[in-house]
Amino acid sequence: MLGSTHGTLTTNSRHARAVACGRAPGPAVQVHQRASALDDAEDLDVSGRPLHSEVPDLDRFFRPRSVALIGASDTEGRPGTGITRQLLAWAERVGARLHPVHPSRPAVFGLPCVPSVAELPEPVDLAVLLVRDPLPVIEELAQVKVKFAVVFASGFAETGAEGAAAQARLAAAARRAGLRLLGPNTNLNAFEEFRDDLEGPAIALITQSGHQGRPVYTLQELGIRLSHWAPTGNEADLESADFLSYFATRPEVGAIALYAEGLKDGRGFLLAADRAARAKVPVVAVKVGRTETGARTAASHTGKLTGADAVVDAAMRQFGVIRVDGLDELQDTAALLARARPPRAEGVVVYSISGGTGAHVADLATAAGLPMPTLSAEKQAELHQWIPGDLTVANPVDNGGHPVGDWRGPKIIDAILADPAVGVLICPITGPFPPMSDKLAQDLVDAAERTDKLVCVVWGSPVGTEDAYRTTLLGSSRVATFRTVGNCITAVRAYLGHHRFTASYRSPFDDAPRTPSPSMRKASGLLRPGQRLSEHAAKQLLRAYGIRVPREQLVTSAAAAVRAAGLVGYPVVMKASAPQLAHKTELGLVRLGLTSASQVRDTYRELTDIARYEGVELDGVLVCQMVERGVEMVVGVTHDSLFGPTVTVGIGGVLVEVLRDTAVRVPPFGEDQARAMLAELRGHALLDGVRGAPPSDVDALVEVVLRVQRMALELGDQLAELDVNPLMVLPRGQGAVALDALAICR
Amino acid sequence: MLGSTHGTLTTNSRHARAVACGRAPGPAVQVHQRASALDDAEDLDVSGRPLHSEVPDLDRFFRPRSVALIGASDTEGRPGTGITRQLLAWAERVGARLHPVHPSRPAVFGLPCVPSVAELPEPVDLAVLLVRDPLPVIEELAQVKVKFAVVFASGFAETGAEGAAAQARLAAAARRAGLRLLGPNTNLNAFEEFRDDLEGPAIALITQSGHQGRPVYTLQELGIRLSHWAPTGNEADLESADFLSYFATRPEVGAIALYAEGLKDGRGFLLAADRAARAKVPVVAVKVGRTETGARTAASHTGKLTGADAVVDAAMRQFGVIRVDGLDELQDTAALLARARPPRAEGVVVYSISGGTGAHVADLATAAGLPMPTLSAEKQAELHQWIPGDLTVANPVDNGGHPVGDWRGPKIIDAILADPAVGVLICPITGPFPPMSDKLAQDLVDAAERTDKLVCVVWGSPVGTEDAYRTTLLGSSRVATFRTVGNCITAVRAYLGHHRFTASYRSPFDDAPRTPSPSMRKASGLLRPGQRLSEHAAKQLLRAYGIRVPREQLVTSAAAAVRAAGLVGYPVVMKASAPQLAHKTELGLVRLGLTSASQVRDTYRELTDIARYEGVELDGVLVCQMVERGVEMVVGVTHDSLFGPTVTVGIGGVLVEVLRDTAVRVPPFGEDQARAMLAELRGHALLDGVRGAPPSDVDALVEVVLRVQRMALELGDQLAELDVNPLMVLPRGQGAVALDALAICR
Repeated sequence: MLGSTHGTLTTNSRHARAVACGRAPGPAVQVHQRASALDDAEDLDVSGRPLHSEVPDLDRFFRPRSVALIGASDTEGRPGTGITRQLLAWAERVGARLHPVHPSRPAVFGLPCVPSVAELPEPVDLAVLLVRDPLPVIEELAQVKVKFAVVFASGFAETGAEGAAAQARLAAAARRAGLRLLGPNTNLNAFEEFRDDLEGPAIALITQSGHQGRPVYTLQELGIRLSHWAPTGNEADLESADFLSYFATRPEVGAIALYAEGLKDGRGFLLAADRAARAKVPVVAVKVGRTETGARTAASHTGKLTGADAVVDAAMRQFGVIRVDGLDELQDTAALLARARPPRAEGVVVYSISGGTGAHVADLATAAGLPMPTLSAEKQAELHQWIPGDLTVANPVDNGGHPVGDWRGPKIIDAILADPAVGVLICPITGPFPPMSDKLAQDLVDAAERTDKLVCVVWGSPVGTEDAYRTTLLGSSRVATFRTVGNCITAVRAYLGHHRFTASYRSPFDDAPRTPSPSMRKASGLLRPGQRLSEHAAKQLLRAYGIRVPREQLVTSAAAAVRAAGLVGYPVVMKASAPQLAHKTELGLVRLGLTSASQVRDTYRELTDIARYEGVELDGVLVCQMVERGVEMVVGVTHDSLFGPTVTVGIGGVLVEVLRDTAVRVPPFGEDQARAMLAELRGHALLDGVRGAPPSDVDALVEVVLRVQRMALELGDQLAELDVNPLMVLPRGQGAVALDALAICR
Repeated sequence: MLGSTHGTLTTNSRHARAVACGRAPGPAVQVHQRASALDDAEDLDVSGRPLHSEVPDLDRFFRPRSVALIGASDTEGRPGTGITRQLLAWAERVGARLHPVHPSRPAVFGLPCVPSVAELPEPVDLAVLLVRDPLPVIEELAQVKVKFAVVFASGFAETGAEGAAAQARLAAAARRAGLRLLGPNTNLNAFEEFRDDLEGPAIALITQSGHQGRPVYTLQELGIRLSHWAPTGNEADLESADFLSYFATRPEVGAIALYAEGLKDGRGFLLAADRAARAKVPVVAVKVGRTETGARTAASHTGKLTGADAVVDAAMRQFGVIRVDGLDELQDTAALLARARPPRAEGVVVYSISGGTGAHVADLATAAGLPMPTLSAEKQAELHQWIPGDLTVANPVDNGGHPVGDWRGPKIIDAILADPAVGVLICPITGPFPPMSDKLAQDLVDAAERTDKLVCVVWGSPVGTEDAYRTTLLGSSRVATFRTVGNCITAVRAYLGHHRFTASYRSPFDDAPRTPSPSMRKASGLLRPGQRLSEHAAKQLLRAYGIRVPREQLVTSAAAAVRAAGLVGYPVVMKASAPQLAHKTELGLVRLGLTSASQVRDTYRELTDIARYEGVELDGVLVCQMVERGVEMVVGVTHDSLFGPTVTVGIGGVLVEVLRDTAVRVPPFGEDQARAMLAELRGHALLDGVRGAPPSDVDALVEVVLRVQRMALELGDQLAELDVNPLMVLPRGQGAVALDALAICR
């Protein structure tokens, strides 16, 4: 229930505007305060965010035994009439008792009406509200026993602030009435007709915009089973995450397809994705907003480098959610993942009746990172029993065409699938040539029945009305059929990736800190709400978390500078220090490699002169230990409006600005993710040592990332930004030192 | 004719092996020597490569009036029988006279046979050879007048070296016979049945693997016109480039679709692409080999950084060839480009019946770089006459659904298309909902008839048997219909890009140097065949081409070093110099910032000591002027086995190795392409000046790139590699200096 009832701003559906609303700043903090008030301490992490969410029992939502229809109509032309008719047909189909409610009509389509919900003949599982103003009805429903309500009316958060307030009142009324509400601004997609003649695990679909879910629903016409459709609308109460959690518990669900325009609550979404990952149920998602990053650009450097869409992207990857761009990819990937059994091996073999086709598909598959093992000499010899010796059968396997036409066809397919290195067979059928392609399609369908390995077919004809495609291939629930090589490769990559991910998945919520560290107590005193800390204070913050900083002293006279240099040890670095001071280097306020007292004395004067000239009020000059050369990195914390504090790491120096080579994660995450962040960096080889440089102390860097994560968890909601730049990562075994730091308190 | 008759190794088709063959080292040099021998000087650039190619007259190939069929058969079960039957039907359809040739049969399928080609009743335009050993027949054909021959037999270059030799003999025989030969290892695709009831400009198709062309051919079933299909097979004589040039001259051809596994001759391909660019005929290409780069990795640094596939990619972009990956993209992009008229404006508007759909498609379109202008306030007010006021019509335009159902639908579409900022309308129809989608489809088809702007529709249903799709949309040659948003965006981007490219296209062959520069004469004496030059000699080479190098002297004693430093001017850099010396920095053989005679003297001893210890035989020590800091770049020449010498530019320093941030071009290219190379670099912003650094002298950098291109053209075939690393680009107005250079002669 957490993450779904914190009356914060709701998001999304209908459409871009509502999404923008949902992204208004602030919700994460509100969320965590609410959560602290409502929950037992053991359910919260140290930031006050929930560590687990309840799975709403939606059985009676999807299969209500009794339904009240408020605002039912049978007057032709009225908007409610079509919906009433649709619900009547549905109720008859599934055996639900339907009770129309209307203040004046005695009956609707022959069914007796009651004038108000108070007079319903029985407690109902579901109330469907077609009325324009749902609030009074929801309030009335408090008097009767109703589990769920669906609200069709629009004009709420999607229209702006006033609508958002009305929506909050609706949500509050639902809470008081003790019912769970779907909508407003939703529809009847949940009660469409689902084919019950289809076999195998199904896709469960969650959409905010009903319209965009239609193609996934239509997959049923291609033989793909769909078990549920949750059109979440404005998500005043029930949200995508609730359905995600619920579907992950359903045995008939093989994969969840999610179409999201916005997310209501970041943590709630992650907890639901965590449930799915634990249950090994794949989630494939389209999340609109690749290009809205500009709107959420944070003010500071690290924030700028990691757009908010990059945070969504990272969060999804952390929890194994497979993000795709197009609805066609959503369909094809979800369909494959729903039905394919876990891979017996990772190897992918491309099998075709033309060497040209095989080379092309193998090229694209390899470029996409699919593992394409070379078949063993024994296997190749076996295949050459049936395939002419001058054809390549190493992988891709080219049969030259003819063996397809006779008894050899099935033998070849079986032999490939029997190879223990092979988990996936991809057979592109480039063009329909019935004498070959019809039999090949049938052979593949038959072979797929005999194996638990994945058989994928790409039907390359742009027409798609051919029998071999429509009847043979789509008639099989064991073959995954695609129309393009690209979508097949995307889906197979997602399939292998999903199983690899869940096999080693360990929920970060299990290990998330629940109680403040001693560091937090030390650090809290250093924070200055609303202010930017001086470099020196920011470094104290890091030191409190056990992150190494150079020996340094803040001095306010040339003489003190010379004394400090003696203590710190020559050579020293000197920097002007002031809370509001950015771009020190550009202003000439950083001096490196000072080797004598006289240099220190002169430098002190120069720095204070420049500061005076620039009108910067210094709190002193830092005299710092000079650190030997290493690899410059940046590590930081940025506040994301959806997910709260996030941790970023990147290649430092001038290039962080030019190349934006950074990786981001949403806490909590484990050491594996910290290492994965480094692997994501384009310049990660710098850490291995290039041009004779020694390998860097990556372990120390990972440790800093994890300590910064701890800061994000413990102080994140009080920090607008933390930026360690540069973090000098020294050669292996020598650690990492934060040479400069920036901290801005909220 | 050039570029097609140089009996070098032929490439491709059937398949990966033959492609690998075609990439064997050396052809470029052979090509240019041949060319020099065969052609007038004015047709060659300074490297001896042709500057123009003839367009073969293929009219009589595609429309032969008379055809000899050698090896005709009507015996059921014989491989030639099906082909004979197909050719008979084709000849009847197009009115060609068919003459079967068979040593013993009196007639085939009722047509009288002649026993040998010598006894053909008339000169024939085309001889089709179904015989297993075509060479004797080709030799016989020298005695009769035959314009073209098609050779079906396989077993040539695709099988290895022996086959390649047989293929060369075949090509030589064809040359002697004065005929142009298609094949071997090809088929009858050129003589398939083409629908003549389809309207508008057509796609002309070139494939090496016939099988992979089938889906493009099948587009005719979706109403897309196809005018030609050239299955080039092994390209012993006629190659893809010949057909490219020819199709670019044909008025009925709207776009050329090319499926290539390898290219026979790089320059020939570029000259053909240049013809198409001049004629503004779009070429869309799949080129297999994204992942074969490893096999062609050059030994040197620059070579490693630019895989050969990157060269193909760059060459295609230079000449406006649109490269795609999947056959589905090839189909959709070629179909759009064939039929769409030039854009009246660049603006793209997304129009949908659901705000959710619009937001999603606009998000993907923007992410792909399509220009999505905000409609003017006037236009929005106009649209709001028909679209409810609470819906967004700024772009994307959301009509909310209802206006589609009545008279408002066409008005909205017309109003959008009438906007002068709008060149393209994209209407995604996410799911079929006949009351709306049928009328919407019809309205779009009707509107497309009234406009010369581009109307694209994405039919989102995965089924594809719906009437609105099959009949209404595919029935229109004015609407471009897609099945996925991704392919629509790819095609629209290619469409706008093509017209932008051709509008400003200027052929680099027009400006290519034909005669050696004075630099070349100076430089030639410095080359040492088969050897690596010393840094000093390599810099002399640069100096000969007017590229600035630091003042420097090569010295062989400490005393001379001190004298040299005095002349060069302090501070100086000292470097050990030897022809075979790589990794100077890593060995400690480079010393910067020496400011006194004693430092110079000591350094001289240290460098020679290290060299002795490392066993490096020095030719001396370089005493060089120390150059102030700038942006380190690399510029180089690498030999590509397909295209010959190529020019690479990249961000220098340690990062060139880590980030491989380079761009490559194939000469000849103009200043525009030199600037485009810089824009391609991920780190290009470094040149603008970051963190207070001044903007770099980009003009000087471009000038160096062009001078290096001149070296590539004039010396390229004698250089295995040239690598200027680093080229220090100084602040604007101060030039660029080559601080180090590597040159390896072939």
